[in-house]
Amino acid sequence: MSRPLMVNAFDPAQAAELPDAVALLLERRRRVLGPSYKLFYEEPVHVVRAEGVWLYGPDGTRYLDVYNNVPAVGHCHPHVVEAVTRQVARLNTHTRYLYDIVLTYAEKLLTTFPAELANVMFTCTGSESSDLAVRVARNVTGGTGVIVTENAYHGVTAAVSEFSPSLGPGVPLGPHVRVVPAPDAYRLGPDVGAIFAGHVERAIADLRRYGMRPAALVTDTIFSSDGILPGPAGFLAPAAAAIRAAGGVLVADEVQPGFARLGEAMWGFARHGITPDLVVLGKPMGNGIPLAGVVARPEMLADFALKARYFNTFGGNPVSCAAGLAVLEVIEAEDLQRNALEVGRYLLDGLRNIARNFPSLGDVRGAGLFIGADFVRDPVTKEPAPEIAARLVNALRRRNVLISASGLEGNVLKIRPPLPFSRGDADIFLEAMQSALAEQG
Amino acid sequence: MSRPLMVNAFDPAQAAELPDAVALLLERRRRVLGPSYKLFYEEPVHVVRAEGVWLYGPDGTRYLDVYNNVPAVGHCHPHVVEAVTRQVARLNTHTRYLYDIVLTYAEKLLTTFPAELANVMFTCTGSESSDLAVRVARNVTGGTGVIVTENAYHGVTAAVSEFSPSLGPGVPLGPHVRVVPAPDAYRLGPDVGAIFAGHVERAIADLRRYGMRPAALVTDTIFSSDGILPGPAGFLAPAAAAIRAAGGVLVADEVQPGFARLGEAMWGFARHGITPDLVVLGKPMGNGIPLAGVVARPEMLADFALKARYFNTFGGNPVSCAAGLAVLEVIEAEDLQRNALEVGRYLLDGLRNIARNFPSLGDVRGAGLFIGADFVRDPVTKEPAPEIAARLVNALRRRNVLISASGLEGNVLKIRPPLPFSRGDADIFLEAMQSALAEQG
Repeated sequence: MSRPLMVNAFDPAQAAELPDAVALLLERRRRVLGPSYKLFYEEPVHVVRAEGVWLYGPDGTRYLDVYNNVPAVGHCHPHVVEAVTRQVARLNTHTRYLYDIVLTYAEKLLTTFPAELANVMFTCTGSESSDLAVRVARNVTGGTGVIVTENAYHGVTAAVSEFSPSLGPGVPLGPHVRVVPAPDAYRLGPDVGAIFAGHVERAIADLRRYGMRPAALVTDTIFSSDGILPGPAGFLAPAAAAIRAAGGVLVADEVQPGFARLGEAMWGFARHGITPDLVVLGKPMGNGIPLAGVVARPEMLADFALKARYFNTFGGNPVSCAAGLAVLEVIEAEDLQRNALEVGRYLLDGLRNIARNFPSLGDVRGAGLFIGADFVRDPVTKEPAPEIAARLVNALRRRNVLISASGLEGNVLKIRPPLPFSRGDADIFLEAMQSALAEQG
Repeated sequence: MSRPLMVNAFDPAQAAELPDAVALLLERRRRVLGPSYKLFYEEPVHVVRAEGVWLYGPDGTRYLDVYNNVPAVGHCHPHVVEAVTRQVARLNTHTRYLYDIVLTYAEKLLTTFPAELANVMFTCTGSESSDLAVRVARNVTGGTGVIVTENAYHGVTAAVSEFSPSLGPGVPLGPHVRVVPAPDAYRLGPDVGAIFAGHVERAIADLRRYGMRPAALVTDTIFSSDGILPGPAGFLAPAAAAIRAAGGVLVADEVQPGFARLGEAMWGFARHGITPDLVVLGKPMGNGIPLAGVVARPEMLADFALKARYFNTFGGNPVSCAAGLAVLEVIEAEDLQRNALEVGRYLLDGLRNIARNFPSLGDVRGAGLFIGADFVRDPVTKEPAPEIAARLVNALRRRNVLISASGLEGNVLKIRPPLPFSRGDADIFLEAMQSALAEQG
């Protein structure tokens, strides 16, 4: 039987076997939060504090965080804590007044982008950023069509959920949306870039057949929810050329790969040798303080600005900007991009060693600290094995190692820890993997 | 000539006459922020810190804040600062793990609502909340139509901007959206409740004529951007009955009136003797830390939860919840609802005294610390006089009093200070108003 990756506190059968303290919290959740609130793992994790790559339970149990990219520079990083603490006591308002920190932050953020990407607009969530980016893309192209990968997730606003197929059949795709298979080099081979571009071209043609012009290809640069598809580096370039040739723009969703995670570069698109038209930023940007944005070629925004009167009350507020600035400072000061590169390679090697003894671990791939472990029923057919991934996620949780799975079939372990993840942390994780796999036989 | 309420830093003609330090900040904004970023006032305000109802410039100039509802319990309130400072150093993660503060906060928040409104879902912005509320309304009703007032503003996501007519002609309304005149008792008389309900009924009939069923009437409970329309209390009840009779639900947008501002009640809908189906919360909720939500009758959410897989990464994070909890504690501890009631009445009286000598101030109205001053060209025809409001906004800014205007024509001063606004603060404001009006002759 496949085990659940998530528990719904509203299912009494699932809640019955849990410890009392956890059951009490579940009961409180059931009463006040909407039933959409689900929890990770068969046995949910109760946390009271966090530091670096560790989360702590009320009894002092510590959990190794191998999953969360929001606390990008480590949970409760003292430099971010200090920046937020200072700013929240000093000034927190909106961008209809002049203040320095939104500019200092925007300037520093933009130095990490190619010169063509010279403007930034701030929002509060990746969803708001995806929503804004597609509004901008539609305005500048005059098209409406949006192309995404088969199991993409770009956010939860009404408009964005229409092009987030990973939300499942309960959330219909928009009539202007086309989905294409993700560029899975493990199953499609090294020509995946040309194959992917071919799918994008057919999606463009299909939109045209329905009388629609394409506005944007919206794409992860490492295809997170499609199962962590990092390479070969450069494989996005032909698809980028295809969407532009058709009059659309390229929207790179850097919510997950961005902010130095991929080791080789600050931004995932750089690995592909391309410069997007619009870049969507989110999760790790403020280390947990809500902060997100859209980085853009200025020519994308000019006409939109005249028409749309876009204003985001909390977007670019001084406290969020202070957090964002501190994140960039920590990435630099602690050389976290290099750490992501080095520890990422170490993890890849370790996982590949493990894979030798476990043929169900069909593929290990990644860039920096964004790694997928692809489980299959058969290494020749490469048929996805979500049941193995789900068992492992729960087995690792019992070993106090927090992780989850992704992919169209849910068969890919998503290894995406905070960036200060060390070799020692990697050893703990690898040992837990080894043991959890051995347990499954 | 009408003076601008907002300056676009991208217009060199507007920027030419500004002080050097301000011009430098404008130049930096022009370079890095998108051209959507506008500033209040002919001469923008540069701020470096804030406290209570005051914002401070770099030279120590202090500005009385008569406008901002985001710092609801006062800028940089020490109790909120302390709560954020404590929590950001301890734990900041998402609701897929169990932690206490999201529940403690949700429980406390829900005690301020009628018992039927028993669930809350957290988001980061009012826009996300409006977006979610309408998705929920459509799911539960099976309808698509959305009815709003003529100059309503409910947010900036793609979906919400389609029912935010105040964004202007550059942002087309959705084909499923109908707008109705706002219930302006000053111009329509005391039967405004019946008149408003009549408009809603005609909008429902018009939707039906186009083959659409209504999903929701989305409405402010004091009609902020429509020009501050507070009464007579109870006037929303007939419209609420009308939308429900047609199978739609009532979505109350409490982003501006909520959190004790109206003095008589914690929530604006209570003044009308109604209980909405969904309530949208935002701006003041975290005193500036991004925090927003939707409060709902549980039966609204049940089916939506099964289908939509809604998850908001930053929604309900411990730091935002700590800020939200502290805001509720301060409202109680400092009796800010009573302060809003008492100082609101004092302000109304003071403004009505001023109005005796200035016939262009046609109407002064409000509830608690949400007051509109309606300027007209002629007190008999009540023709709106936006040019007077715009001149006043800039004249008050020169007196270091910060305010803005609203209404379909922009003729209504929007008086909406932080809740600790005192009688002494009111005196400063009233004196500045008297002087600015006298200056205009």
